[in-house]
Amino acid sequence: MNILEIIEKKRDKKELSDEEIRYFVKGYTCGEIADYQASALIMAIFINGMTDKELTMLTIEMANSGDILDLSKIGGIIVDKHSTGGVGDKVSIILLPLVSSLGVKVAKMSGRGLGFTGGTVDKLASIPNFNTEITEEEFIKNVQDINISMISQTRNLAPADKKMYALRDSISCVESIPLIASSIMSKKIASGADKIVLEVTYGRGAFMKNIDDAKELAEQMVRIGKLADKETTFILTDMNNPLGYTVGNSLEIKEAVRFLRGECISKRLEHVVLELGASMIKLAGLGDDLEENKKKMMENIKNGKGYNKFIQMVKRQNGDISYIENLEKFETTKFTYNLTSNRDGIIKQLKADVIAKFVCELGAGRIKKEDKIDSAVGIEFYKEVGDYIKLGENLATIYSNTVLSKNSLLNFYDSSVII
Amino acid sequence: MNILEIIEKKRDKKELSDEEIRYFVKGYTCGEIADYQASALIMAIFINGMTDKELTMLTIEMANSGDILDLSKIGGIIVDKHSTGGVGDKVSIILLPLVSSLGVKVAKMSGRGLGFTGGTVDKLASIPNFNTEITEEEFIKNVQDINISMISQTRNLAPADKKMYALRDSISCVESIPLIASSIMSKKIASGADKIVLEVTYGRGAFMKNIDDAKELAEQMVRIGKLADKETTFILTDMNNPLGYTVGNSLEIKEAVRFLRGECISKRLEHVVLELGASMIKLAGLGDDLEENKKKMMENIKNGKGYNKFIQMVKRQNGDISYIENLEKFETTKFTYNLTSNRDGIIKQLKADVIAKFVCELGAGRIKKEDKIDSAVGIEFYKEVGDYIKLGENLATIYSNTVLSKNSLLNFYDSSVII
Repeated sequence: MNILEIIEKKRDKKELSDEEIRYFVKGYTCGEIADYQASALIMAIFINGMTDKELTMLTIEMANSGDILDLSKIGGIIVDKHSTGGVGDKVSIILLPLVSSLGVKVAKMSGRGLGFTGGTVDKLASIPNFNTEITEEEFIKNVQDINISMISQTRNLAPADKKMYALRDSISCVESIPLIASSIMSKKIASGADKIVLEVTYGRGAFMKNIDDAKELAEQMVRIGKLADKETTFILTDMNNPLGYTVGNSLEIKEAVRFLRGECISKRLEHVVLELGASMIKLAGLGDDLEENKKKMMENIKNGKGYNKFIQMVKRQNGDISYIENLEKFETTKFTYNLTSNRDGIIKQLKADVIAKFVCELGAGRIKKEDKIDSAVGIEFYKEVGDYIKLGENLATIYSNTVLSKNSLLNFYDSSVII
Repeated sequence: MNILEIIEKKRDKKELSDEEIRYFVKGYTCGEIADYQASALIMAIFINGMTDKELTMLTIEMANSGDILDLSKIGGIIVDKHSTGGVGDKVSIILLPLVSSLGVKVAKMSGRGLGFTGGTVDKLASIPNFNTEITEEEFIKNVQDINISMISQTRNLAPADKKMYALRDSISCVESIPLIASSIMSKKIASGADKIVLEVTYGRGAFMKNIDDAKELAEQMVRIGKLADKETTFILTDMNNPLGYTVGNSLEIKEAVRFLRGECISKRLEHVVLELGASMIKLAGLGDDLEENKKKMMENIKNGKGYNKFIQMVKRQNGDISYIENLEKFETTKFTYNLTSNRDGIIKQLKADVIAKFVCELGAGRIKKEDKIDSAVGIEFYKEVGDYIKLGENLATIYSNTVLSKNSLLNFYDSSVII
């Protein structure tokens, strides 16, 4: 076997064997296969595609290229949840304690955010003293003891995927649905998941711009999951508008807490949480009736069990629960600015990409890996898309640690809000 | 403009602009564009193709990446001849003196051979003292004075092509007809040709294995030539069998001399010489009637003018013409072996690739650039394909400087001759 034959086969749109895919992933990861050869093969894959069998093998080999988390000590079925990213997406922070309170074992590793707003780990890290970097032993012990732990991804997961992604980025080969699917699934498999629930986002604030692409990506991941023996389900989430009322790290934690307490529940967010949760409970083998599962989740909001699970997790990971119990304690920003509606009408759009970029510029996101993020900045809306608003009514508050000019606020309003 | 956009366009099967192609060729030649990026683009070109306009621009830019020979001092139309390579192909050595004797200005630069048997320059170099490495000034002066000079290609011609070819070779992207066409034409343009006559070979002894591919390649070169304002014509030559009676450097020189003297003319070789020559004369503006041109060529064989032109060229380039005048003077090999026919019948095939490999192993060709070649070794046939032969009649003589076993001779006969 040699790389020239492998490139030639894919160039001519033939199916690669398991051995050939393994040979490529291993050879490229260890540097025996040159970048320019990998690059030719990736372009051939981009243009000529891969069968589900090939993609599954690629996914498994990329997962095998680094550490594979062994969660078998926990026992039972580990269901992982993954989102392809969004704006104001605090789903994991609500969903995972909630399903955990219903018996689902949650062992969640999340990446830090890059671009747009922070990732789940960045949001959790805005809770004073909350430790997202506990050891793997503690992580597993927490799941054994209290059914949940959420930490930062620190292991060397799927390095082949990392190397290939960087190469794809430098040869205009990122936007390949099969390769994106394989990349995501390789990390999920390396994270030790038995089954996977996906939130695939689309629209202005998502990587996939339209619902058809999102669906194709989702279905591709489901097919890979099936062949890799990791049952996978998905929902599609519209990310043209932010999810929920807030965008910004501690603002989203506060919204998540209020959601879990049943104090303030965004309709769109509720829908996503219930759909994903119902699937997770089903995949975990704790209830096949999705509607019934949703009811149980709503009950555990009402009776406070979801909230209590969250408190329990925060405590376990050294977080200061006084902040959760009294959300006013969260440090706020030096400046706040109100946005008021300039007309009567139904809110048609709150453009997620414009809002994300604005909040990122306030300091909530990272441009480079080493950037620090400002937990307190962000935006809080008082209305959702579809709600009615009156002229002069408060639409949102902007939290900023820098002075914003009237002009920049007007510009932001004009470019993001459609009523 | 940046390379990512260029790769993306070709990835999506769009046409690249002149500026984009120039940007790529320049950037890649000077090392600003990385191998892995060029590699992705080349694979995209391989799979998605290029329009004639794109290919022409690629060709011109590759030509412009190095020296461009300026033959304008010579005056008149310079018609270059190119062969895609064959076995026993001594066409240039016969054809060029012949058309030169009819007024065509011949300024021919040839490469050295690699693999198989030697190139035209290697064959000429088997004439004692013949200098294939005269200066460019002498080269041009010779053409001005006696209408012909044939030398070795020494200039830095089309380095972009050289770099791209090496990359293509390491990513399974050699066998692309458009890229092969562009590569050949870039060197012809850099060699200063005004017009080009092509001998595109096909079959066992050629790079193109079948006539359809050869035709596609030829027509692609003609289209590039047209757009690049270098009128181009072609003939297709069957290279399943060797061209002419001999394979081996000095053996081929001797055959060429005998041809020019009218002493021994292989039918297939005659056909190729006349077809190419008639075109060259026409392109040079010296006669539009192809049949008439062929007649003139045959006349100049009969009246010795073609032969005399060859003698004149050899003398000018310091070659010892006593060898030409008395072919017996050429050093021969230590051993000769006769191959006799093992049956009566028509010769159906003399497998060119098997013969070339055999002769190369005798020492007539190069495996690596720095290998020395043995001018005297080779094979001389007494019959051509299509001729009738009797049992026990002499088919060929093998010239070798090593002892060959009876077994190896029988093996060679069995694997190369079909009667």
